[in-house]
This record gives sequence, C-alpha cells and structure tokens, in this order.
Amino acid sequence: MIGIVVVGHGKMAEELIKSAEMIMGKQDKIFPVHLTEEMGPETLVEEVKKAVGLCASEEGVLILTDLYGGSTTNFVAANLISSGYRVEIVSGVNLPMLLSVLCERTDLNLAKLAEKAVMDGKEGIMNVRKILNLDSISQETKSGG
Amino acid sequence: MIGIVVVGHGKMAEELIKSAEMIMGKQDKIFPVHLTEEMGPETLVEEVKKAVGLCASEEGVLILTDLYGGSTTNFVAANLISSGYRVEIVSGVNLPMLLSVLCERTDLNLAKLAEKAVMDGKEGIMNVRKILNLDSISQETKSGG
Repeated sequence: MIGIVVVGHGKMAEELIKSAEMIMGKQDKIFPVHLTEEMGPETLVEEVKKAVGLCASEEGVLILTDLYGGSTTNFVAANLISSGYRVEIVSGVNLPMLLSVLCERTDLNLAKLAEKAVMDGKEGIMNVRKILNLDSISQETKSGG
Repeated sequence: MIGIVVVGHGKMAEELIKSAEMIMGKQDKIFPVHLTEEMGPETLVEEVKKAVGLCASEEGVLILTDLYGGSTTNFVAANLISSGYRVEIVSGVNLPMLLSVLCERTDLNLAKLAEKAVMDGKEGIMNVRKILNLDSISQETKSGG
C-alpha cells in the first residue's frame, strides 16, 4: 500500500488527517509532518524523510503539502527526489484530496495516485451557491466594487 | 472588510487559520467552526451563524468549508442562504485559498472573492514533480498497475 505523508505549516497536517479519519475511520501508513516557526528547511527535510521511512513500501509514498512555493513543498521535493526517494509530491492539500488518495491508494500506482490527488483536490473546490443553484439574495445590488 | 469563517470536521479549521497566520501574521475577522463527532447538523448551523455574526459587516462573510456534500457544506449553505444571510460558501478549503482570500478581501466584493477563492484554491494544487520538472526516478518501471 502506498504510504501518505502530509506536510504543513503548524499543526494542520495532523488535524487534517484526523478530519479524514472522522469520516473514514483510523488509517494505516499515514503520517503528519509539522513545520514549526523555529524549524529550518533542512530540519523539515529530515522530518519528512523520517515520516517517509515510517510508511515506505515498494509502491512508494505520496507527499501532500500545504503550499507550493514554500519550504514545505519545493525544498522538500527537490531534496527527496534528487536523493532518489520513491515519492510523488502534490501541493495544496485539502480534505477531498486526502479522502480520495486514502480510497484509491491500493488500486493505483504512485504516479497515477498523484494525478488523482490533483484532480479530486481541484474537483472538491466549488462555489456552493452556484453548484446547489441556491437562489441569489441579490449579491450584486449591495456589494458594489 | 469581508469576514471569513472556516468550517471543518474536527479542529482542522482552527489549525488552518493558524497556518495562514504563521505566514501572514495575525488576522482580524476570521473564525473557525468545528464539527465534532457528537454535533448534529442543526447545532453546526447555529455555530456557523454565531461565527458569521462575529465577523459580519455590510460586505458580507465568505464561508470556506472542508468538504462538499457533507453537513459542513450543503446543510450549512442551504440553511444560511435561505435564511437571508449575506454569505458565499466555497468548499474544499486549502491553504492557497485561505491566503488568497485574506489578501484580497478588502479589494473584491463577496461574489468575486468567492470566485477568486475557487480559482486560487485550484491553482495551488499541483503535481510538484511535473511543475518543477524534476527528473523522474523511473516511476513507471517499478510501479506496475
């Protein structure tokens, strides 16, 4: 089974995993990594490598990060991939993405699971008023600008 | 200034706000709402209404929820919009979305801020290996499937 590591600023990674487990029940081979205020990027990379080690298998590990462009993503990605770790990295983690990869990780290979994460993460983002076709309470008349 | 309410399963809403504040510093008019295991949808709606009341203004409130289709989104949306609350609701909240609306909420009206949330939430979701053009470590050869 493909392992999953969630990396984020503060403690959001752990709480996001708990949110998913509230819906799906306790999950195996999934670990959070927290970037704290005091932590430099090298320490973060070491923490991610430890977490990857905890859930590694022949199928590899999918790393879901909070924010493209920051040390939680780009520095980690460049470091682990250049070090030969069998990982894929998807940024912008949200609950639909996490639920999707937890459901699909026994059926897809690592590269396809990363693509599925991107697709289902994006598809879970919706303007709910539009999707549910809820009657507009004259948004435009009051809001100006 | 448009208020922001983040609604999620467990404590992820609070931690996501803290993640954003790690990057942008302390923010005004933003509140988390937590759906606990014991809480029914009616109680959740009351909690969301309280949070909306705490950050309400003439410009309205943007509600960012974790998951379309659950009580954190659809029940809340239907209830608040039919009750005439000046809100927009976007599901699938992630850190790029939250940072974007915190930056843009003084410049856009509520409907446009909801559209911006959708756009920037989706744009923050990326397959990092592809985007950074990191050399593939022969993903396909080992993974099968």
